Parts: sequence; structure tokens; C-alpha cells
Amino acid sequence: MILYDTPRSGNVWKVRLLAGFLGLPLRRRTLSIDRGDLRDPAFLQKVPFAQVPALDLEDGRVLPESAAILHFLARDTAWWPAHPFAQAQVLSWMSFEQERHMPPLAQLRLRLALHRDTDPGEPRILSLAAQARHALTLLEGQLAAAGSTGWLATADHPSIADLALYPYTRFAPMGGIALGAYPATTAWLDRIRQRLGYQPLFPGRPEMDLATSETACPA
Amino acid sequence: MILYDTPRSGNVWKVRLLAGFLGLPLRRRTLSIDRGDLRDPAFLQKVPFAQVPALDLEDGRVLPESAAILHFLARDTAWWPAHPFAQAQVLSWMSFEQERHMPPLAQLRLRLALHRDTDPGEPRILSLAAQARHALTLLEGQLAAAGSTGWLATADHPSIADLALYPYTRFAPMGGIALGAYPATTAWLDRIRQRLGYQPLFPGRPEMDLATSETACPA
Repeated sequence: MILYDTPRSGNVWKVRLLAGFLGLPLRRRTLSIDRGDLRDPAFLQKVPFAQVPALDLEDGRVLPESAAILHFLARDTAWWPAHPFAQAQVLSWMSFEQERHMPPLAQLRLRLALHRDTDPGEPRILSLAAQARHALTLLEGQLAAAGSTGWLATADHPSIADLALYPYTRFAPMGGIALGAYPATTAWLDRIRQRLGYQPLFPGRPEMDLATSETACPA
Repeated sequence: MILYDTPRSGNVWKVRLLAGFLGLPLRRRTLSIDRGDLRDPAFLQKVPFAQVPALDLEDGRVLPESAAILHFLARDTAWWPAHPFAQAQVLSWMSFEQERHMPPLAQLRLRLALHRDTDPGEPRILSLAAQARHALTLLEGQLAAAGSTGWLATADHPSIADLALYPYTRFAPMGGIALGAYPATTAWLDRIRQRLGYQPLFPGRPEMDLATSETACPA
């Protein structure tokens, strides 16, 4: 299977984390947004949504959208729970991530760490930061209630919800949101990072510090 | 089961459509955003996300997020396909709706039909309209390929992806996007509306015209 990605994509990282934990051999094909690879006709024919991640099953079938790929790869594993209500809670937290958690955190990272084109004091940035803190507070509440051995939507084994929430939570300091105020969240990030099979964003490099911009790393 | 809703919510409508087609007796508890019901402490205790839809199982469990509720109610029915890749495609189109389809269409409806506080010629509205048209073009391409008996992500029976895409596609004319340019989409909307068990947005009223604002209807 081929995973279309870009070097810094948090949404691709979700899939790479799951593949690492499952020991799945995904071949990465890394595209450049700046070079226009996502608008290339051959890519558009495979992925009309023009986005990454997309999973190419190499039999003519290509699957876009991280939530769909995570479900497809995890459904017969411990990363997708068996109980219907637990499944629903996994999907609920994954929707939360898509709608309310990732959008402000991704924008803050883009503006303040990757493009560095916006002043941190601008009203638009302050509004995004308030949205991001509210999302992180809801996440913290759930993780604090789950306790030091529980997971976001499940008790005994982490689920794809934990992986879906991991990247943009991990990126929060790049967008100016220190995670010290969210102790259950920080502990949960560490527990995921310490699992066997963990894939860093940039393989072969030291794990980026939570407070350091990844723009120091070449793409 | 109790479904927390608001009168005009397209996200709640997705769940009400499925319940109608399945013949599920959901009791609606209709909240008012203007009255602050979503910030009421008793509601926040049940639904920390402070949003609708939320499904109250009346045993202490409450499930927010339309995608999660649709999966929970549909998973043992024909509305959730059995085949893993079909399941993945259902989730892929549901993510597409959340990320790229609903956001511009909901904003256009809110600004131009519900609040009527923005000039249709403003740059922000033109940008939203371009995003909405691009999303509708991707939807149209998939529905045209599926043909007059197929569905968005499945062949023989519609899935929860069709229901997730229905409301905000149906609302497009309220936001100034005429659907005449999307014939496969218009035919698909009609096929859903004609199914036994279909629930209109406003029960007991004539179905709103595709080109008429629902703001004429009292909330």
C-alpha cells in the first residue's frame, strides 16, 4: 500500500502513527504542495479531493480522508473497539477533532510557526487561541476522567481516537499554546510516544521539543 | 431515546432523517440557542461539547456528534454497509462533508438566509460560494458516476453518507447556490425525499422549496 503524504502534515501523521503501532509496511510517497503536486492531473485522477493523506491500495482503489483510512486499517484490531457505544465515542472524538480541535490549532501552527506571517497579538490569532484552549480544556477533562491508565474513548487499549487527537495536540506549543496547563493531556501524549512502534513526525531525527518550532527542520 | 436538537439544525436533520427511515421513535427535545439553552448547566453536564445533535440513551450515556450518532443507530442496518472498503468510503464522504462541504454551505445559509446580515457581493461571501461550488462539483461527479440507481458510497442501498450530505446540499439555494447546474445531485436529493419514512425539516409543513428561504417559517 502507498500512503500519499506531505512532510509536515498532521493528518498524515495520524495514519503513520497507526501503521507504526500495527507494524504495517506503508510506502510513503511524499508530495510537495509548493511544487503543485496536489494539482497534478495524474494525482487528481487518483485523488479528486486533491489532498493528503490518501491510501492507494494499488488495485485501483484509493481512499482519502484520515478518519476513513484509520477506520479501514484499524477495524479488525484493538485500535477499533468492539463495543458499539465505544465505537460511537471514538467517532465522536474524531469529529470533535475535525471540527473544533484541529482547525484552530492547525491555523495557529501555520501562521505562527510555519509561515510566520502573522503577529501573535492580532485579534484573529487571539480568537483562534481562545478556540484552541477551549478544545484542549474539553480534551483535558476527558483525559483526566479517564485516569492514568485509560484512553480518550476506551479503557484498556488506545483507539484511533487517541491517534486522531495526537498530532495537533502535540503541535499546540508551535502555535503559542503551552501544554503545562493540561497535565492529563501531557501525560497522555507521553504515554503514546513511549509505545512500541511510535513514529516521530520526522523519522531519523530527534523528536522535536514540544516548545520548539519544526520550521528548523528542512522539509 | 431523546434527541437534543434546535429547530433549524442541518446536523440534527441528518439524524432525524435516519430515524425516520428506520422507524425509530426518537423524542425530540428542542433547545433555543438564542435563549442560551446550550449554555445551561444541566445541559452542559450532559453534553460538555455544548452542541446538538446529542443522543441521550436515558441510562446516563449521552452521545454528541452527528457522525457518531448516525453510525451508532445504523451499524446493524442496511444504512451501514458490510464491506470494509464501502465502510471506509462512507466515512470518507462524511469527513468531506464535515470539512469542505458543510462549512461554506452553512455559512452562506446563515449569512444570506437566516441572519441576512451580509451583502451577497462581499469578498468573503464570494470566497465561500467558490468553496461551496467546488464541494458540490466533487459531489456531483461522484453521484453522476454512481448513476440513477446508485448512491454516494454504496450501490444497492443508500448509506449514512447520503444522509450526512443531504441537509446542507438541500440548503444550497438558501445560500445563493442554484442546484440546476448539478443534475445528478438534484435527482439524488429527490430520490431521498421520495423514500418511505422521509422526515422534512419542519414536520407538518409543506416541504420548503429549494429556492425559498426557510426564514419565512417561524422557529
